[in-house]
Amino acid sequence: MQNFEFHNPTRVIFGTGQIAALAKYIPANARVLMLYGGGSIKTNGTYDEVRAALAGHTVLEFSGIEPNPRYETLMQAVELVQGEKIDFLLAVGGGSVVDGTKFIAAAALYDGDAWDILKIGGKVVKAALPFGAVLTLPATGSEMNSASVVSRAATQEKRAFMSPHVYPRFSVLDPAKTLTLPLRQVGNGVVDAFVHTTEQYLTYPANAPVQDRFAEGLLQTLLELGPQVLARPDDVEVRANIMWTATMALNGLIGVGVPQDWATHGVGHELTALFGLDHAQTLAIVLPGILQVRREAKRGKLLQYAERVWGLDASQGSEEERIDAAIGNTRAFFEQMGVPTRLSGYGLGAPAIDATVAALEAAGMTGLGERRDITPADVRRALQLSL
Amino acid sequence: MQNFEFHNPTRVIFGTGQIAALAKYIPANARVLMLYGGGSIKTNGTYDEVRAALAGHTVLEFSGIEPNPRYETLMQAVELVQGEKIDFLLAVGGGSVVDGTKFIAAAALYDGDAWDILKIGGKVVKAALPFGAVLTLPATGSEMNSASVVSRAATQEKRAFMSPHVYPRFSVLDPAKTLTLPLRQVGNGVVDAFVHTTEQYLTYPANAPVQDRFAEGLLQTLLELGPQVLARPDDVEVRANIMWTATMALNGLIGVGVPQDWATHGVGHELTALFGLDHAQTLAIVLPGILQVRREAKRGKLLQYAERVWGLDASQGSEEERIDAAIGNTRAFFEQMGVPTRLSGYGLGAPAIDATVAALEAAGMTGLGERRDITPADVRRALQLSL
Repeated sequence: MQNFEFHNPTRVIFGTGQIAALAKYIPANARVLMLYGGGSIKTNGTYDEVRAALAGHTVLEFSGIEPNPRYETLMQAVELVQGEKIDFLLAVGGGSVVDGTKFIAAAALYDGDAWDILKIGGKVVKAALPFGAVLTLPATGSEMNSASVVSRAATQEKRAFMSPHVYPRFSVLDPAKTLTLPLRQVGNGVVDAFVHTTEQYLTYPANAPVQDRFAEGLLQTLLELGPQVLARPDDVEVRANIMWTATMALNGLIGVGVPQDWATHGVGHELTALFGLDHAQTLAIVLPGILQVRREAKRGKLLQYAERVWGLDASQGSEEERIDAAIGNTRAFFEQMGVPTRLSGYGLGAPAIDATVAALEAAGMTGLGERRDITPADVRRALQLSL
Repeated sequence: MQNFEFHNPTRVIFGTGQIAALAKYIPANARVLMLYGGGSIKTNGTYDEVRAALAGHTVLEFSGIEPNPRYETLMQAVELVQGEKIDFLLAVGGGSVVDGTKFIAAAALYDGDAWDILKIGGKVVKAALPFGAVLTLPATGSEMNSASVVSRAATQEKRAFMSPHVYPRFSVLDPAKTLTLPLRQVGNGVVDAFVHTTEQYLTYPANAPVQDRFAEGLLQTLLELGPQVLARPDDVEVRANIMWTATMALNGLIGVGVPQDWATHGVGHELTALFGLDHAQTLAIVLPGILQVRREAKRGKLLQYAERVWGLDASQGSEEERIDAAIGNTRAFFEQMGVPTRLSGYGLGAPAIDATVAALEAAGMTGLGERRDITPADVRRALQLSL
């Protein structure tokens, strides 16, 4: 296990009906800006519940934060925050709204060109407005971490930043608020949480048994609950457990002291930036190919994954057979969740691979993965396996 | 899963050599009181490392905090804190030193008789001095939680309190500092972490698969590493993983949203108060009997424990046989760790059971466990199984 520092100060308020308690976590005299997306929170009741809970607060609103939130949109919110002397932000929505709010929180107090935060990175962030979140879509883990991903429409760039200043002060996780999600988003969420876990687990053995067991537990839970949520979309207990799994998959805990990969995310971000695919769709395309291309570097963990997550021990085939089966099962699970794992499933072909590889090269992302040695040629081979 | 709130603000700084970084986590102008126990930190080098790291700080010392820290001793430290205008505490030691420091931190700012904190409970605590910890003995989890257990010698009472004000600001976990521990304390630590986990896991099914998988992962890890640490006491990697397991076993995470038992701890505290047994020794005596006496109430989770932790599935015997085997294996593991699981192993017999049951009744602890229905008669039967 490598040395590490772990500090996650986000307060999680979990369970059906918890939005009603919101007011006590926001200073009474705060000028609050409530941020949300396209309006689904108005049809599923979340909007009314939040407004009712904050009846005693001064609340302004900013809506229209897109999936893969855009820098251009977020900068309009920054202007509103500064003009209206807002001092507390409340994100109400999924990972995109929370990610966008993190950027706004940092940009509002940043002295300089706010694009620096995404261009140079979170180290330029010295302060951020306090904010909380009401989560409506379990997937990204943004509700309990310090990371944010923002896209710039003008340049087709998708960039991330991390800063300890942008942990949410609190996040309310009410699983009942996820019952009205379209199944496409439900499937996407399960795939997203699954790949967040593999990015921190399918690397090389680092003698970190707790982190391994926790990661395996999250993967096993997603394999159990994924089919259940599709079969019984009204089961709030299943929703609750998926929600908690997605939070735990990317709150830093399973990643302490171990190598991390993130090549699948790096490539996936380019696919979203270029072709507008959902984030999880890109992960479902990229991961199986990356695992195949990296099977030697990841051999030890792939065999452990095959055995502990898929029940494939030495009695069930050669090493090569077990690795192939584990990767094949992973692809089949994503498909089962309604997320196609091949470029052709989205009407894309070989030219998309050329464009993605070119974009990676243009961005200088030429050494990806836990050993920083995944080349654009490797990425090309990985994507060709998912044509 | 039950609704819950989770907030753990402790910063963990983990790994060999991390004590050197201590100074940056303590305000430069703080008046620091360094608290420790019987002096083992002076022979294993921890004392010198801490003093060197804090060379630029004003540091006073208070030593002599006992295992099962005594109220009487801690109140002397409170007097020193108040007299010397101390504004930051640093616990250097194991769970007893950290627990004692939590009490001192709260008592120093408490307006009234400090015994209230233990008599009435942590809700009377409205503030506490900030403090950090340098951990030298992995076992109690106190380094990353808000609980403290204190004994009053004069009345043979052992009482606990919890308060969100007594989370350590930080804890430095350097596994190399545990290499010189006597094997008795190593075995005790493994048993302590194991029983912390079972107290939050072996209750009744609550449809909380993440918490279950995490708890099972910690138990599996302890079963793997326990024998390794005895066989290779110089292996710092094994020490590191045991240290992280013990922290995760009681930092609140595996207990969110699920029922909790704590009967074994309740009975164990009385055994320590009456007979001076090590904390882990009492747990090793009490747990196997409690599991037997509660086998009906705990049937579902005992079978899950048998299957997932001990590999005993339906092909390996009847339900009764698997439950008996799982409980028997648990007892055998504690013995393997050098911790006797029978009262006779400590020179105690039936009169000790009478005294323990009488003490529970006197303290009003007549309804223990996850359903608050474990009676003194149940405790008597449980202890009789460990004569």
